[in-house]
Amino acid sequence: MAEGEEVKNKQVLFRNYIDGFPKESDMYISTENTIRLKLPQGSNGVLVKNLVLSCDPFMRLLMQKNDESGLFGCYTPDSPITGYGVAKILDSGNPKFQKGDLVWGMTGFEEYSIITETESLYKIEHTDVPLSYYTGILGMPGITACAGFYEVSTPKKGETVFVSAASGGVGQLVGQLAKLMGCYVVGSAGSKEKVDLLKNKFGFDDAFNYKEEHDLTAALKRYFPEGIDIYFENVGGKMLDAAILNMRKHGRIALSGMISQYNLAEPEGVKNLMPLIYKRITMKGFSPLDYLTRYSKFMDILLPFIREGKIVYVEDVAEGLEKTPAALVGLFSGRNIGKQVIVVSRE
Amino acid sequence: MAEGEEVKNKQVLFRNYIDGFPKESDMYISTENTIRLKLPQGSNGVLVKNLVLSCDPFMRLLMQKNDESGLFGCYTPDSPITGYGVAKILDSGNPKFQKGDLVWGMTGFEEYSIITETESLYKIEHTDVPLSYYTGILGMPGITACAGFYEVSTPKKGETVFVSAASGGVGQLVGQLAKLMGCYVVGSAGSKEKVDLLKNKFGFDDAFNYKEEHDLTAALKRYFPEGIDIYFENVGGKMLDAAILNMRKHGRIALSGMISQYNLAEPEGVKNLMPLIYKRITMKGFSPLDYLTRYSKFMDILLPFIREGKIVYVEDVAEGLEKTPAALVGLFSGRNIGKQVIVVSRE
Repeated sequence: MAEGEEVKNKQVLFRNYIDGFPKESDMYISTENTIRLKLPQGSNGVLVKNLVLSCDPFMRLLMQKNDESGLFGCYTPDSPITGYGVAKILDSGNPKFQKGDLVWGMTGFEEYSIITETESLYKIEHTDVPLSYYTGILGMPGITACAGFYEVSTPKKGETVFVSAASGGVGQLVGQLAKLMGCYVVGSAGSKEKVDLLKNKFGFDDAFNYKEEHDLTAALKRYFPEGIDIYFENVGGKMLDAAILNMRKHGRIALSGMISQYNLAEPEGVKNLMPLIYKRITMKGFSPLDYLTRYSKFMDILLPFIREGKIVYVEDVAEGLEKTPAALVGLFSGRNIGKQVIVVSRE
Repeated sequence: MAEGEEVKNKQVLFRNYIDGFPKESDMYISTENTIRLKLPQGSNGVLVKNLVLSCDPFMRLLMQKNDESGLFGCYTPDSPITGYGVAKILDSGNPKFQKGDLVWGMTGFEEYSIITETESLYKIEHTDVPLSYYTGILGMPGITACAGFYEVSTPKKGETVFVSAASGGVGQLVGQLAKLMGCYVVGSAGSKEKVDLLKNKFGFDDAFNYKEEHDLTAALKRYFPEGIDIYFENVGGKMLDAAILNMRKHGRIALSGMISQYNLAEPEGVKNLMPLIYKRITMKGFSPLDYLTRYSKFMDILLPFIREGKIVYVEDVAEGLEKTPAALVGLFSGRNIGKQVIVVSRE
C-alpha cells in the first residue's frame, strides 16, 4: 500500500468499566476506524503495524474504574484496549526507530497504532526466534520470570521450588530456569493436560491439578515433605495460605501475581501470616518494570537456552484480532494452554 | 546462707495447655519445691538465683499444646514456666561462668534455677545501667528492635516509620532508634496514657490510640499522607491490612510479632496482599535468635545512647514472683505500660 494511504484499522474497543469476572462482551470489535499510514507532521512518536499482541492477567486490572496497581492507566470506554505486543515501524518521528524496525512494547489492540510513549518500546535485535516470543519469554513475562527467580528469590542449587499457575507465560519459564539451576521443582495448574505439559514438556520434577485437591496444604506436603524454599506466587488466596504452611525456614516468596484474586469484589483473607515470623520468611512483591535495565542481561541468559533447546516455550496462539475478547477472558478460567498470544498479521 | 544449704524455691507453675486468651489461673504459685544451693556433682550447667524475669508475648505460644513457632519448647504442666531473665550465678559447672557472675538468658520463673543450656546465657558486662534492662533494651527485645529496624527494615534518613504496639518493650525502642536516624515516626498504642508516653517521653512525632479509630486505614492516612516507608509490625490482623494500604512503593514491613493474633482460634485473614505486588513491598519475618552474633554490635549502639540519655526505656515493674500470672496475662489486654518485668529479688 502507498505511504500515507488511508486504510481501515480494525480495533478491539473497551465497552465499560467492570467488577468481577470479565466477559467477552466487555470488549467489542470495530471496523469503523481508519488511519493514515503516515505520522502527523511534527510527531516524535512512531506509527506501527501490530503483528502479535499479548493477553496478560494484569489487563483485567485496567478494566476497572480505578487501577489500584497504578502501573498503567485504566482503559477508556470505546477506545482500544492496550497491552504488550510486537509491531513493525511504518513511520517514525523518533531517531531511535527507523521504518522497518521490529519492536516490542505497549501498543493498542488494533491493526495499526500510533505510539507516543516510545521510551517503553524495545527494538528487536534477534529474529532467529519466533517474533511472538517478544510478548512472552523474551518480553515482559521473561523479565518477570528472570527478575522474580534470579533476583527476588535468590535461589541456590538443590533448593525446592514451587510454582503456581505453572504452565502460564511466566510459570513455565520459572520452572525451567529452576531446573537448569539444579532445583527440585513442582508446579500447580488447573487441568490434566497442563499437568502433563509441566511434567513431560517443561521437565518439572512433579506437578498437580489444584482443582482436584481438597486440601492444598496436604497436597503441598505430599510434594514437599521437607518443605518449600522458594514459592513463585502467581495466584494468591488459598494457595498462598497453603504454601506458607509448607515453607521452610528462611524461605522466600516472590509475589509476581495473584490471578485468583483479580476478579473478586473483596480479596480472600490470607490467615497464615504468623508462620512468616517463626520461619523467617521473606515475601516480596515485585514488578518487571523495576528490572528493565537488566533486560539485556536476562536476554543473554535466555537466548542461548532457547537456541540450544534447553528451554521450550509453549504459546496458545489465537489468529486474528477478533479472537481477543475470548482469549483475554479465557485467562481467568484457565482456558489457555501456555502463553496466550493473538496473531494480528503474519506479514 | 551456707553453700549447699537446702532452701525453699518459690515457683510459678504452668497449669495446663490452653486455647484462647490466657488467664491468671493457667498458672499457679507453689512454695513446695526446695533446692540445694549447690550443683549436683558432674553437672556442667549453672545454678542461678533469679533476680528479674521478663514477661513477653511469645510466652503465650508456649502455653498451647503445639508450639507452632518451634522456637522454644512448650511448657510442661506442673513445671515452672520459662522465659528471659537476669540472674546471679551461685554455682557453676561451666568454665565460662563463675560464682557471682551476672547473666541474662532463658531461665525458670522461680527463685532458683539450674540452667543446663548455658549456650543461651550471656554474661552481663556493664552494670552501670539497671539490671532489668537486660530483659529489655539490652536483652532480647533490644536485639529484636535493632535487628528489625537496622537490618530488616533498611532505613534511610527522612523515611516515614510506623510502629504498632509502640509503647511495648520492642516498640518504644524502635521508635527512638528511628527518630535518632532522622525518620518521621508515628506509633499506635491502646490508651491515652500510652499515646502521651509515645509523644512526650519517647519523642515520637505523633501517636494514636487504635481503640478510638473506627477506620485504621483512614487513621494511618491522616498521619502518613505521603505513605509509610517502614512498618514495624508487632500486632498483625487489621492493623497490617490497614498499613499495607498506606505503604509507599518499595516499602518494607518488618514482621516482629502479631500479638493481636496469638489468642485467636483461627487468625484473622489479611486481605490487602495484592498491593504488596503493585507497591513492590518486602514483608520479612525475622527472629532475634538469628541476630545473636550481632549482639555486641547492637550493644555498642545502645549503651552510649542510654548513657547519654538519648534513649529512655520505660518498664512496668511488678514486685515478686506472685505477680507473674497477672503481669503475663496483662500483656494481652495491654495493661502494662512499657516493658513488663518481674523483680524476684533485689539482692
